[in-house]
Amino acid sequence: MKEVFADIITIGDEILYGQILDTNSQWMSQRLDEIGIKVRRKFSISDQSEVIKTAVDESLSKADVVLITGGLGPTKDDLTKQALSEYFQMPLELNQSALEDVESIFIKSGRELNDINRQQAFLPNGCQKITNERGTAPGMWFQMGKKVVVAMPGVPMEMKAIMTKSVLPKIKKSYRLPVIVHKVIRTIGIGESWLSEIIEKWEVNLPKHLALAYLPGNWQVRLRLTGVGDTKEQLEHEMDQEMAKVLPLIQEYVFGFGEIEIEDAVGELLKSKHLTLATCESCTGGFLAHRLTSVPGSSEYFIGSVVAYHNDIKTSLVDVNPKTLEAYGAVSEQTATEMAEGIRKKFKVDIGIATTGIAGPDGGSEEKPVGTVWVAISYGKEVFTRKFQLPGTRLYNIELASVNALNFIRQTLSNSKN
Amino acid sequence: MKEVFADIITIGDEILYGQILDTNSQWMSQRLDEIGIKVRRKFSISDQSEVIKTAVDESLSKADVVLITGGLGPTKDDLTKQALSEYFQMPLELNQSALEDVESIFIKSGRELNDINRQQAFLPNGCQKITNERGTAPGMWFQMGKKVVVAMPGVPMEMKAIMTKSVLPKIKKSYRLPVIVHKVIRTIGIGESWLSEIIEKWEVNLPKHLALAYLPGNWQVRLRLTGVGDTKEQLEHEMDQEMAKVLPLIQEYVFGFGEIEIEDAVGELLKSKHLTLATCESCTGGFLAHRLTSVPGSSEYFIGSVVAYHNDIKTSLVDVNPKTLEAYGAVSEQTATEMAEGIRKKFKVDIGIATTGIAGPDGGSEEKPVGTVWVAISYGKEVFTRKFQLPGTRLYNIELASVNALNFIRQTLSNSKN
Repeated sequence: MKEVFADIITIGDEILYGQILDTNSQWMSQRLDEIGIKVRRKFSISDQSEVIKTAVDESLSKADVVLITGGLGPTKDDLTKQALSEYFQMPLELNQSALEDVESIFIKSGRELNDINRQQAFLPNGCQKITNERGTAPGMWFQMGKKVVVAMPGVPMEMKAIMTKSVLPKIKKSYRLPVIVHKVIRTIGIGESWLSEIIEKWEVNLPKHLALAYLPGNWQVRLRLTGVGDTKEQLEHEMDQEMAKVLPLIQEYVFGFGEIEIEDAVGELLKSKHLTLATCESCTGGFLAHRLTSVPGSSEYFIGSVVAYHNDIKTSLVDVNPKTLEAYGAVSEQTATEMAEGIRKKFKVDIGIATTGIAGPDGGSEEKPVGTVWVAISYGKEVFTRKFQLPGTRLYNIELASVNALNFIRQTLSNSKN
Repeated sequence: MKEVFADIITIGDEILYGQILDTNSQWMSQRLDEIGIKVRRKFSISDQSEVIKTAVDESLSKADVVLITGGLGPTKDDLTKQALSEYFQMPLELNQSALEDVESIFIKSGRELNDINRQQAFLPNGCQKITNERGTAPGMWFQMGKKVVVAMPGVPMEMKAIMTKSVLPKIKKSYRLPVIVHKVIRTIGIGESWLSEIIEKWEVNLPKHLALAYLPGNWQVRLRLTGVGDTKEQLEHEMDQEMAKVLPLIQEYVFGFGEIEIEDAVGELLKSKHLTLATCESCTGGFLAHRLTSVPGSSEYFIGSVVAYHNDIKTSLVDVNPKTLEAYGAVSEQTATEMAEGIRKKFKVDIGIATTGIAGPDGGSEEKPVGTVWVAISYGKEVFTRKFQLPGTRLYNIELASVNALNFIRQTLSNSKN
């Protein structure tokens, strides 16, 4: 079977200048990968007609599918439509169906159409219009024999709706696609090179059509096993066998598989044990509660949180003893312990977890440098505490403290017999 | 003056498969832009030796500076070092200084060096080693006449330290750079095309060396004015004059300039008015507190938060009347009002803000669909309320609700005479 290759082109000076982060191409990659299309290259180029035409030409010479985002807005710096009109030699013409789409969006929101909006209904004569239900710039499908170029707006919500509803189904119909299977093992609390040492013998003995990758980030490493084959069943079977060999070697570090996040894993544990949880946060400032509540259905086990940013709140709302604060300071094992016990009692939950630390950039001392974080968990008859020394900037420390706190809950619950 | 162009190459199948989000290239773009280097293209390619060599060759033919990240890890899927060794015909050799760097990192953390780590000290003979203080893979600088290729690890923290400490200073010394000035106006609460209509006359009359771009996202639009010139002073003067013309037209939507975020703008307002704030959050689940506390020094005005996820917490901790919940439901103007008043009283702050809504994916009804959010602000003698109907998925609704709540604070304080 011939492999189908795709290129992704994102257009916009704002990407090259670094003024916005391109999240579109990651999402598009994931969707293409799922249907067995291999992304060959992604590139980001500037809003210049000649540059756009050259990039499309270059991609079309090697890739089967070329997906383009950006530069379709209503303003003067958006040149993609004009460039494609020139490249494919299809003059811009008013597309009646596109005009109706734009009008219907304005009617829905009760606003009036202006001239700039109306211009969005002009499309290269010969391309297929793709309806954009969430915005005023239509997508465009250019068929060149067996190859295809698709242009979509850069607004993520609009691009995603167009991809899901129109582009992906159409691509699936157009090609006979190979079978690609990914299995991702999610680990936490162990570095890439240690993981690699533990599983080295297994890794070198993998058959050639199965490949392993290490994807590190935020004190986690994703282990991704990728297989290419003829039938899904055979590949799945073979890969499951390999997973069964490697998992026992690294069990204590594994919190889940695939797209699961540590907060999902914690949620599953809490649900299976019928436990409720509340957080009392100082340095994490609500981010731990946010991670927990980002999971749909988290209200089943997450009751609430007190962000006790000021010491007054620690004493008045969660009953930390003022003497404890005075003797040990807000960032201490003792204060964390009392916060965890206090929130558990106040919120009448099974588990109280507390964070207190110095996120930075200021507030550190020689004894307690920036990045010092205490986490305490009150559960059963015990309080478990742990100190972390985090290496990052303010936002990164807040994130790492929250991730470590979540992993601490996971470990505490996994080790308990209840 | 000759412009200096850079290409950025990110290497890794994990980027093409969409398994990780490339944030490195945005950060690198920003730093290059600041010193007047124009990023010509960014591209992401796979971990294959031939592909890497072709990409470097292609970039070197057009760009002056080629920055590469990724594929330098200690594991078998990392091929960048080998590919560069072949491309530049510089065999890998043990670099004594690199070995010492790796050893010192292990001594610091009290761990033992293994063989895989030791291999990281082998470098192409003829490149300059760049010290990586935060990890075990050194950076590499390849000088080719006036052109340069730099390879760095893909771990963001490591890449950033290497860029800041070594690569950027070295690049600045190597080239005579043009002057580029950006001025960014941050707006909120108005769409791109309406903004464009308001400022159209000003925009078309801009001199040729000043360019305007619209960068939309999260109910905000950044207006970026970019100027290229000979001296910074002249350019700054000219651009300030243009800014003075456009700002009065869009004043009510402007919350700041440059890299400021809405939470920074709110923080500045609170500080200037010597006011304190607390949040009571239901649907935003701590994310509003997180946005507020992501600002360094926020403890000056942010006192704390109650995440009242369960109704029990709304009544027991912030004194919402159970009858209000029963009569109007948790997602209502009345409940939001009592939450805002309750948190203000409980936390003894000047401003109490509350959010309650349905983030999704479940929990919506015909009367109150997913995305319905009430925000209330208790300030002075009044309670201000606003209803939002948000269009997104769970996480996006949480973010939009928080951004809108922050803007609501900004507007309330800007309009008040206190």
